[in-house]
Amino acid sequence: MFRSVCRQAARHLNATPRTAIAGKRHLHTPVPFDWKDPLGAANNYTEEELAIAETAESYCQERMLPRVLGILSLQAYRKEDYDRQILTEMGELGLLGSTIQGYGCAGVSSVASGLITRAVERVDSGYRSGYSVQSALAMGGIEEFGTEELKERLLPEMAKGKLLGCFGLTEPNHGSDPGSMETVAKAHPSKKGVYLLYGSKTWITNSPIADVLLVWAKLENTGKIRGFVIERDQCPPGTLETPPIKNKNGLRASITGMIQLDECPVKEENMFPEVEGLRGPFSCLNSARYGIAWGTIGALEDCISRARQYALERKQFKGNPIAKYQLVQKKLADATTDAAYGILAAYQVGRLKDEGKATPEMISMIKRQNCDRALINARALQEVFGGNAVSDEYGIGRHVANLFVTQTYEGQSDIHSLILGRAITGIQAFC
Amino acid sequence: MFRSVCRQAARHLNATPRTAIAGKRHLHTPVPFDWKDPLGAANNYTEEELAIAETAESYCQERMLPRVLGILSLQAYRKEDYDRQILTEMGELGLLGSTIQGYGCAGVSSVASGLITRAVERVDSGYRSGYSVQSALAMGGIEEFGTEELKERLLPEMAKGKLLGCFGLTEPNHGSDPGSMETVAKAHPSKKGVYLLYGSKTWITNSPIADVLLVWAKLENTGKIRGFVIERDQCPPGTLETPPIKNKNGLRASITGMIQLDECPVKEENMFPEVEGLRGPFSCLNSARYGIAWGTIGALEDCISRARQYALERKQFKGNPIAKYQLVQKKLADATTDAAYGILAAYQVGRLKDEGKATPEMISMIKRQNCDRALINARALQEVFGGNAVSDEYGIGRHVANLFVTQTYEGQSDIHSLILGRAITGIQAFC
Amino acid sequence: MFRSVCRQAARHLNATPRTAIAGKRHLHTPVPFDWKDPLGAANNYTEEELAIAETAESYCQERMLPRVLGILSLQAYRKEDYDRQILTEMGELGLLGSTIQGYGCAGVSSVASGLITRAVERVDSGYRSGYSVQSALAMGGIEEFGTEELKERLLPEMAKGKLLGCFGLTEPNHGSDPGSMETVAKAHPSKKGVYLLYGSKTWITNSPIADVLLVWAKLENTGKIRGFVIERDQCPPGTLETPPIKNKNGLRASITGMIQLDECPVKEENMFPEVEGLRGPFSCLNSARYGIAWGTIGALEDCISRARQYALERKQFKGNPIAKYQLVQKKLADATTDAAYGILAAYQVGRLKDEGKATPEMISMIKRQNCDRALINARALQEVFGGNAVSDEYGIGRHVANLFVTQTYEGQSDIHSLILGRAITGIQAFC
Amino acid sequence: MFRSVCRQAARHLNATPRTAIAGKRHLHTPVPFDWKDPLGAANNYTEEELAIAETAESYCQERMLPRVLGILSLQAYRKEDYDRQILTEMGELGLLGSTIQGYGCAGVSSVASGLITRAVERVDSGYRSGYSVQSALAMGGIEEFGTEELKERLLPEMAKGKLLGCFGLTEPNHGSDPGSMETVAKAHPSKKGVYLLYGSKTWITNSPIADVLLVWAKLENTGKIRGFVIERDQCPPGTLETPPIKNKNGLRASITGMIQLDECPVKEENMFPEVEGLRGPFSCLNSARYGIAWGTIGALEDCISRARQYALERKQFKGNPIAKYQLVQKKLADATTDAAYGILAAYQVGRLKDEGKATPEMISMIKRQNCDRALINARALQEVFGGNAVSDEYGIGRHVANLFVTQTYEGQSDIHSLILGRAITGIQAFC
Repeated sequence: MFRSVCRQAARHLNATPRTAIAGKRHLHTPVPFDWKDPLGAANNYTEEELAIAETAESYCQERMLPRVLGILSLQAYRKEDYDRQILTEMGELGLLGSTIQGYGCAGVSSVASGLITRAVERVDSGYRSGYSVQSALAMGGIEEFGTEELKERLLPEMAKGKLLGCFGLTEPNHGSDPGSMETVAKAHPSKKGVYLLYGSKTWITNSPIADVLLVWAKLENTGKIRGFVIERDQCPPGTLETPPIKNKNGLRASITGMIQLDECPVKEENMFPEVEGLRGPFSCLNSARYGIAWGTIGALEDCISRARQYALERKQFKGNPIAKYQLVQKKLADATTDAAYGILAAYQVGRLKDEGKATPEMISMIKRQNCDRALINARALQEVFGGNAVSDEYGIGRHVANLFVTQTYEGQSDIHSLILGRAITGIQAFC
Repeated sequence: MFRSVCRQAARHLNATPRTAIAGKRHLHTPVPFDWKDPLGAANNYTEEELAIAETAESYCQERMLPRVLGILSLQAYRKEDYDRQILTEMGELGLLGSTIQGYGCAGVSSVASGLITRAVERVDSGYRSGYSVQSALAMGGIEEFGTEELKERLLPEMAKGKLLGCFGLTEPNHGSDPGSMETVAKAHPSKKGVYLLYGSKTWITNSPIADVLLVWAKLENTGKIRGFVIERDQCPPGTLETPPIKNKNGLRASITGMIQLDECPVKEENMFPEVEGLRGPFSCLNSARYGIAWGTIGALEDCISRARQYALERKQFKGNPIAKYQLVQKKLADATTDAAYGILAAYQVGRLKDEGKATPEMISMIKRQNCDRALINARALQEVFGGNAVSDEYGIGRHVANLFVTQTYEGQSDIHSLILGRAITGIQAFC
Repeated sequence: MFRSVCRQAARHLNATPRTAIAGKRHLHTPVPFDWKDPLGAANNYTEEELAIAETAESYCQERMLPRVLGILSLQAYRKEDYDRQILTEMGELGLLGSTIQGYGCAGVSSVASGLITRAVERVDSGYRSGYSVQSALAMGGIEEFGTEELKERLLPEMAKGKLLGCFGLTEPNHGSDPGSMETVAKAHPSKKGVYLLYGSKTWITNSPIADVLLVWAKLENTGKIRGFVIERDQCPPGTLETPPIKNKNGLRASITGMIQLDECPVKEENMFPEVEGLRGPFSCLNSARYGIAWGTIGALEDCISRARQYALERKQFKGNPIAKYQLVQKKLADATTDAAYGILAAYQVGRLKDEGKATPEMISMIKRQNCDRALINARALQEVFGGNAVSDEYGIGRHVANLFVTQTYEGQSDIHSLILGRAITGIQAFC
Repeated sequence: MFRSVCRQAARHLNATPRTAIAGKRHLHTPVPFDWKDPLGAANNYTEEELAIAETAESYCQERMLPRVLGILSLQAYRKEDYDRQILTEMGELGLLGSTIQGYGCAGVSSVASGLITRAVERVDSGYRSGYSVQSALAMGGIEEFGTEELKERLLPEMAKGKLLGCFGLTEPNHGSDPGSMETVAKAHPSKKGVYLLYGSKTWITNSPIADVLLVWAKLENTGKIRGFVIERDQCPPGTLETPPIKNKNGLRASITGMIQLDECPVKEENMFPEVEGLRGPFSCLNSARYGIAWGTIGALEDCISRARQYALERKQFKGNPIAKYQLVQKKLADATTDAAYGILAAYQVGRLKDEGKATPEMISMIKRQNCDRALINARALQEVFGGNAVSDEYGIGRHVANLFVTQTYEGQSDIHSLILGRAITGIQAFC
């Protein structure tokens, strides 16, 4: 009944690209293990992707890192002080909205954009948040749903980092459940083609410094959610306020605020013409979540690197480095494994994304898992520092605090469990 | 200092295979999420690999599964009763030693062999053990280190499943530390070109039914470990005993035994000519461990499938299926995620293996992680069955018991942690 | 506003029993740490309790253990072969129904009964199940809810282990949700004062050997759950069947079966006169669960003892015992801690039980936690045995398999989470 | 062979205090479950202990809490601004050094002092640290090892909170391994009866505001560790510096600093006369660790209370409070269980301490476990707050950050594992 498919297959083996170089024993010198890339993910990237990654990595380590972890003090994180110049610099390097084709954007692959994101979050998740909002949420939303006029007018300036964007979905009483939002857009009582927006959004990264605010609101007459691009310089005084939210437990290097709309006028041309309901914001979130899956592994990799170095330098009992402790080695092995697995999964979804084969559930999966595992391992690695972990100069406490926040935003981990559970069982368990 | 590499890169983008189809929005109908392949790993396989996987899967489900989980009773598992005919059938399908080029073997890719292994372990880890020992350890060892004469004489018969092999490394007092083995090979006092082997090996899968026993022993005069191919039909009575070990807690569908050598004569031609020390057995183990990384995910996938079905059918409280419970959905989401990640990691190492870029540490990593995660998730899924889990008819308890064993053999999980820890830190922590 | 209560308090300190011997430095020789009783729980027991514990412990180790782990073979566990003589022996020692006052029972404290339970489960959870069913479920139920006539007639014989009992609540389709049971009691169409029972119960420990079957059924005319004491010798042929269920994954040293009732006649006197609804079975379960909280710690303590001994005897690498490994020591420290905490919690609830202050939620808490922690730690300790764990002779795999079952019966762990969650929040989350 | 001890025991049962009220069914109205004291620990305390606990609780909630979580801002935590007035207020209430007999101290039981500690840490672990250092480390050390003159002169003022103490053991290069300390005391070259101290200590709670510094140093001529009580007002300028350490990741409401000693003169009378080696500091740490075991449960209890309230008030999807989610209820159930178990264990050791039966390993066990479980559960509860957790106004992020520090100081968790491992196996695994 069963034919010998294997033998058949073997006979028919053509030299398919990299897959079927099977069988031949490789006798050349053995490849060394690289703890920074334990499963050889770099073999998967194109040359262009590797070049982009290197550019992003150099910029982030040389220009961004000193701002969060300065010689004098950890300015950005300690003082909750975000330097918006960063986005301008990233714009100059072509890193903003990088997967967009045209409009002054680079049009690179999703994997390339993932590598950029990882490089940024290796420095700080707050910087990555600022970057994700500009690239994936604001530019991505406008590119996907905006009119051609809007795209041509706004995207090139946003790509340069001259105009900054933000994304207003979450409201004080509606986090995991945006469908219940209360922000509303009413037709202007007298001016045709103008809507007036009322409501408030909260936990909006970049809102206090944003020039372009993508805000989701329910259209009063239909009750349907629509997207509006608010341009700050068009808003009369008192109609748009974006007070910052301070005293955060994490993501302190990013700037976060509210969006308060009181009779804020928006022209009809700035409303996304076609998309209605949650499909619009969810599509944008999907892109941002994809980036988070790459980014959080970057943060974890930085934790590994810091913990490894500390463990090699810190000596206790008989002068042995604590890297010799089994309990320390296990933490390093666990973290390194999860980082390596996380990158492969993000890579896979990136390739499928560009082939049009990535589903939102895949992105739920990698967002959830990579945030969770980055957090769990970062916490375990923090233990390696013993009492010294309490000092912010070792950097690891900052990553731990940041990663907890990434686990809760853009879909809290448990919510993604239930999204996946629904996809697996066909039954929804939100109650 | 930083040039705009992204824009440059974008300009130079050639149509590289599947990587750079970036940017263009895909408007065709959305791809549905598949809980059996959540991250779309099937997109990565060649057509040949898919065909091989399908053959293996059909054989395993139609021919193997009824033996372990028969209509009348779970014969093999309950009775610790392995049917050696299975290997003959697999041989007929070309599934044995499948990555070997020539000698009657299929010469397929490492990924293809991984897919076969997964299909087998989806049925039972014991069957996979029997298969791994024949393919990776015995045939793989002979192919890599044996003389041409041995290969030509033994491999074709082993590929057909007519001759069965086993692999004798572990000893009663030396598990994680085979370098301390006590089995010894002494030059025959009178017959030139003959060695006499003394010692005993334990926990040897297939030993009671093996025709060809690959045994590692220290050469008396050098103290170096060498590999010997013992042919049972060449052994005088009383020099080779292979008593089975019964009453196992897991892997009961495989047959396990000891190898007791007492003045057992082996011709010099049956000693591997070049390889000395632990490099020989470790190279074989490497191949087997690679297979385990694929196989254990197969077992986990079967647990997911069984738990999902049970949760959909079992109704409690108000007639709702327990699949509606958040606590059940989370278990399914966790398991599905780990299975998806595990497959991508095994796939990656498979490709690198065929390119000569896989390191032993990579294999330690995927062996450890996939065994650990398969076990942890299988245990969590077992809880879904509540009190019914105690019945062996649901199959999940068998997987749980099996997976625990896979975590302890061919490198116990903690030992692989320390192997990885050594690779990461440069310091060894075995004490 | 705040008075110096401390100083006041100190002045008024009377010599309250053991609590206020405060302050004085104790200069006598330091007490050594005892890994078998790490937090000194033995200090809390009365002399009588200690004597009872010693008796139980001696009996279990000397008489019970050889049956489960015999020199020749692990008869009971391997063969699923329960020796009912055990209950008779326990009866002779006064260990059955031990907290009951009168009726030939010992009338000891709940802590004493917990200590007995722990001693039994240290040998095997299956033996403890058989003991719990007799003592807590069957005898306890009759004592709490039965008529005086029933008590006087049955309890003394049950206390001697001459009559064996079982407890029929769970049905094939109703595990966590017994309120939906389908077993029904109808008034006999012609004989006054007789009910006919129809239905089936499953996973009933001891049912195949029980003389006295406490079965819960819905009274047809009221729809309310009532308790019936079925005496096997009163049942006409064909009205009561108790086929054993074999091939269990765990608790193999206990005997389990179904109860199949087909027009089974029970006299009205054998129906519990007052209790209606789930209060009856839940009260019995409460007592059994209390015992499980003690028992599972006994099983864990045996795992600790076995793993510790193995770790001290097993030598790897440079001849060091693996007890020297940090990864092994951590497993032992974790397990020892959870065992010590678990005993204190069970003790506390035992004392409160006798004072009438124990709530069902307390028992949910200690049942859940002690089962969960016993299981988790037993699994971790099983890893200490490496590949050898697969042999049933080390005993630890048996405990692991048993403890999983204890986690799922008498309230699966997640169900107890939701019972506790409801008590904490006031909101029920069963859906 | 086995006599019926149970029956015997029952006959001899005297009315022992609270233990043997066994057997009698309690028919009075059922006791309700109290999520704040799930296992009824309050039943164990004496009336005096309850009164002390109430005083401490009132003070902490009414006077301390507003300082850490003020209406205008979280002054103490946000600004790392410790108000030393707190210790004076606690002194006025008799809460400092409360277990000490005489010298103006209250002389209460160890359980009472544990209850005070729990009340303080319920507010903030930083406040508890300040309190522990004054009470357990500084006052406790002087009381245990100081000369009568020192005790009479210093303790009464310290008890009033007029003189503040600190405890200098840890050094920059010697955390887990204080035996390698570098701080040294040399005999003054000319003044008899005076030592000169050289060296530096770090992570010293209260050092910048301490009047009395208990410092451990090696006596130059013997190499033995000795304890010195440095009185700040006796130190010539430049010989004692105590710069604060700022920018901590946790415990920000406490003040931490270094102790820098350069030719700092200490009179011989201020050296502890008898104690040598690590026994001295370890004995003090033992007392402090005992307090941490109580305190961290207080912090966890506050997290439970906050998460429960948030879950009841926060509504998502269909207007249901998220307390209705199974995943939320499980987190609450887990945390409540660990808090209840933790208190019982701390209570047990407290009683044994006063009876002279507590071993250092017991304290390692409860310090480690209670810190670990408080941290793990606090983190899980933090997830309940979703994105809002990032705001410091919910208080839970502060507890999480604090509890991580408690896990690392006074014996990092892994170090206590190895202390326990050594006690269990007899083999030490520090390498």
